[in-house]
Amino acid sequence: MSERINKRWRLAAYPEGMVDESAFQYMEAPVLPPQEGQVLVKVIWLSLDPYMRGRMSPMKSYVEPMKVGQTITGQSVAEVIESRHPGFQKGDLALAFTGWQSYAVMAGDELEKIALRPAKASYALGVLGMPGLTAYFGLLEVGKIKEGETVLVSGAAGAVGSAAGQIARIKGCKAIGVAGSDEKTEWLTKGLGFDAAVNYKAHADLREALSGLCPNGIDVYFDNVGGAVSDAAIGLINQKARIVVCGQIAHYNAKNPPRGPRILASLLINRARAEGFIVYDFQSRFKAALVELQRWMSEGRLKTKETVVEGIENAPKAFLGLFEGANTGKLLVKVGDIE
Amino acid sequence: MSERINKRWRLAAYPEGMVDESAFQYMEAPVLPPQEGQVLVKVIWLSLDPYMRGRMSPMKSYVEPMKVGQTITGQSVAEVIESRHPGFQKGDLALAFTGWQSYAVMAGDELEKIALRPAKASYALGVLGMPGLTAYFGLLEVGKIKEGETVLVSGAAGAVGSAAGQIARIKGCKAIGVAGSDEKTEWLTKGLGFDAAVNYKAHADLREALSGLCPNGIDVYFDNVGGAVSDAAIGLINQKARIVVCGQIAHYNAKNPPRGPRILASLLINRARAEGFIVYDFQSRFKAALVELQRWMSEGRLKTKETVVEGIENAPKAFLGLFEGANTGKLLVKVGDIE
Repeated sequence: MSERINKRWRLAAYPEGMVDESAFQYMEAPVLPPQEGQVLVKVIWLSLDPYMRGRMSPMKSYVEPMKVGQTITGQSVAEVIESRHPGFQKGDLALAFTGWQSYAVMAGDELEKIALRPAKASYALGVLGMPGLTAYFGLLEVGKIKEGETVLVSGAAGAVGSAAGQIARIKGCKAIGVAGSDEKTEWLTKGLGFDAAVNYKAHADLREALSGLCPNGIDVYFDNVGGAVSDAAIGLINQKARIVVCGQIAHYNAKNPPRGPRILASLLINRARAEGFIVYDFQSRFKAALVELQRWMSEGRLKTKETVVEGIENAPKAFLGLFEGANTGKLLVKVGDIE
Repeated sequence: MSERINKRWRLAAYPEGMVDESAFQYMEAPVLPPQEGQVLVKVIWLSLDPYMRGRMSPMKSYVEPMKVGQTITGQSVAEVIESRHPGFQKGDLALAFTGWQSYAVMAGDELEKIALRPAKASYALGVLGMPGLTAYFGLLEVGKIKEGETVLVSGAAGAVGSAAGQIARIKGCKAIGVAGSDEKTEWLTKGLGFDAAVNYKAHADLREALSGLCPNGIDVYFDNVGGAVSDAAIGLINQKARIVVCGQIAHYNAKNPPRGPRILASLLINRARAEGFIVYDFQSRFKAALVELQRWMSEGRLKTKETVVEGIENAPKAFLGLFEGANTGKLLVKVGDIE
């Protein structure tokens, strides 16, 4: 076999304000062989997620921020090319935090084998992976949704949001989605069975529009977005409402701390709760949740869509599109083919 | 006995923005006799609380707003003067929502007998009443404080705040108070045993000041205030922090929806929770909680202070003082003497 070349993107500098391509530096280097206990993997699918913007900052968060010069963080579905770890053999497909590169040498212990068929392996990064689990635990454990409640989902056409609305429906709730185009809202209602969806860009008074779709108010607001969409939603919460704070993509590129209507008084008046979480808080229960998510998929009750960009070279451009709502469903980079 | 005259204050008009005396209308009328099942009570102590401002508004809340012309809402310690209810006899002391007046005819079922000695009966409106219970359930049930945690209390020299800090200490937490004068902060630390207290008016950079007092960050923020104090506090919350939203006195007189730094991203990054509540959510457990609060008082671990204004005529003026921080501890109107 000819020498393998690793293509990777590293952090050139912490972006200030809206991230652009100057934050990313492209590098090529020969692939190194694995050492004892390590595995060489070839990246097949790279997941692009809004949370990565938060890591590209020196600010304190629940994980260590990326350092300048480091490979951009990211989770992949990868194929084992060469194994010096007893748990893996050539051809295995695994989940790994390889970052944005085409090959990676990883400790075998950092890999997790995937049981999905190769044609569906990418689902392990979407509806049957972190985004699906985020929707699942966010709704059931943080939001504590109950049958008959009205669940509003922002960023509803994204990987997490689209799963969240469908899970709300499966659990007997009324699911209303907010998304950024008519094409997306049509997919949510006609494709995924949301009870209703609204294109926030088409309404000068979003609260008014939401009010019409949620005549009984909002019991659970599953928020991926923040900003004006959240302002409108919070204005409509019911007594004992739960605001599940899953993402705040409207603010990830903010240069200054964003300001807006204060919400503590709304929480007080409504005896409501707003709570942030990360899916890894529920890691011990991932397996059981995945069984349920997979069952819902096989029953046709949980559907997904993928937006695929070809080639690791295009990862930065694709990532920037996340902040413009360019993707519908899960955004993936197809990095290489299974050998 | 000479004819008894009822002095009362009713809502003249919904105040817009900062409430002033024009919102209150003074009335006198002869006291009417009780009917079958009713009790005539004489108000001894009237409780003045910030929440009343919220009721003086046509806005939706967790209770019905006051109507123009109605007696201003308020809880009292009152003495039974004449009873036509089998559960009460002349001379009994009872808690009652009499409103701002010197006498009231109430259904006996609306009264709750007080077991405290007459000299301590006013505690039933403070540390051994709604404010004490609010502190208790807010910290233990909403805040879920754990030994060793840092608990920051805003409005710490008020009736609820002063109890909250002491209960936090009793439960093995570090209690830090924020109040509006050096006299108050001295009372909190030297009088009540708070670990530290800060006069927010004396610091241009409150976050900096709080940061020095909370070197390990804030685990539970018990908020009575909102506004800039909350902004500073929320900037210092720890992973898995709880923000107990008990009051937002800084905003009760706001004419327009107040704006400030957005907090959902802070909740997300810190996997933190902000939750509003009212004490009546825990009504079934009041008795047991009062036993515990009373025990702490008798052990000298829970202290209180009362600011007493003489005469129902002065109730509006005293009430307005709440929004200027005029009171230390529980604000009461001494309306009449026990007969």
